[in-house]
Amino acid sequence: MIKKVDHIAVLVPDLEEARRFWVDALGLELERVESVPEEAVDIAFLPVGDSEIELLQPTDLESGVAKYLAKKGAGMHHLCFEVDDIEATLARLRAANVPLITETAKVGSSGKKYAFVHPKGTGGVLVELYELV
Amino acid sequence: MIKKVDHIAVLVPDLEEARRFWVDALGLELERVESVPEEAVDIAFLPVGDSEIELLQPTDLESGVAKYLAKKGAGMHHLCFEVDDIEATLARLRAANVPLITETAKVGSSGKKYAFVHPKGTGGVLVELYELV
Repeated sequence: MIKKVDHIAVLVPDLEEARRFWVDALGLELERVESVPEEAVDIAFLPVGDSEIELLQPTDLESGVAKYLAKKGAGMHHLCFEVDDIEATLARLRAANVPLITETAKVGSSGKKYAFVHPKGTGGVLVELYELV
Repeated sequence: MIKKVDHIAVLVPDLEEARRFWVDALGLELERVESVPEEAVDIAFLPVGDSEIELLQPTDLESGVAKYLAKKGAGMHHLCFEVDDIEATLARLRAANVPLITETAKVGSSGKKYAFVHPKGTGGVLVELYELV
């Protein structure tokens, strides 16, 4: 079961500059900024309702996310849903021949399980699935 | 105050095809499909948590949204927040020199007030604001 939109990730070249719109002007709360070296990004977490906006600033020019930013420009990067059972969701997607970037769910530093669905299979949206453990 | 993510709009060339991923494979519920001739789209509403995914299929090849689809391809199109006071939010954005597409909130057919913020001012994201009335 898909429980909710966990977050919408927005790729930005500079967190300080992005903060001027999302926090100072729009009025979202900046909960924290976290460095995630294994994904080569610094992330600003802006909770809103029962979801979050995550602002992602690439920290390594050679990373995939930095190249995506250079090629496509700033904007929405991926959409993450919280699911109750990520393995069951991945199995259902595989059965429907939806291409996955992450064939088996990874376990993040905080213990959460996550996986990415290829935009080719969703109609152009990079979709992340996330299971709290 | 920003209350929540109201919806994420995903631009698709064909609702039936998009439904195969979002509903049949991923498992979101299809609540309804609505024709919105004044915006030249058919919209499928897929509620999830306290937000919605809205799939937008252009119905007029000459419309801005059809041209956007032809130019940029399918994918996330805009991000809509529910706010408690849209006029106050627009005033705050104007005071911060954020460019607006909709200078004064419009009133939709269902009575809701809405406005769009220009992606130039948000760092690349087309942001919609929405006030229930």
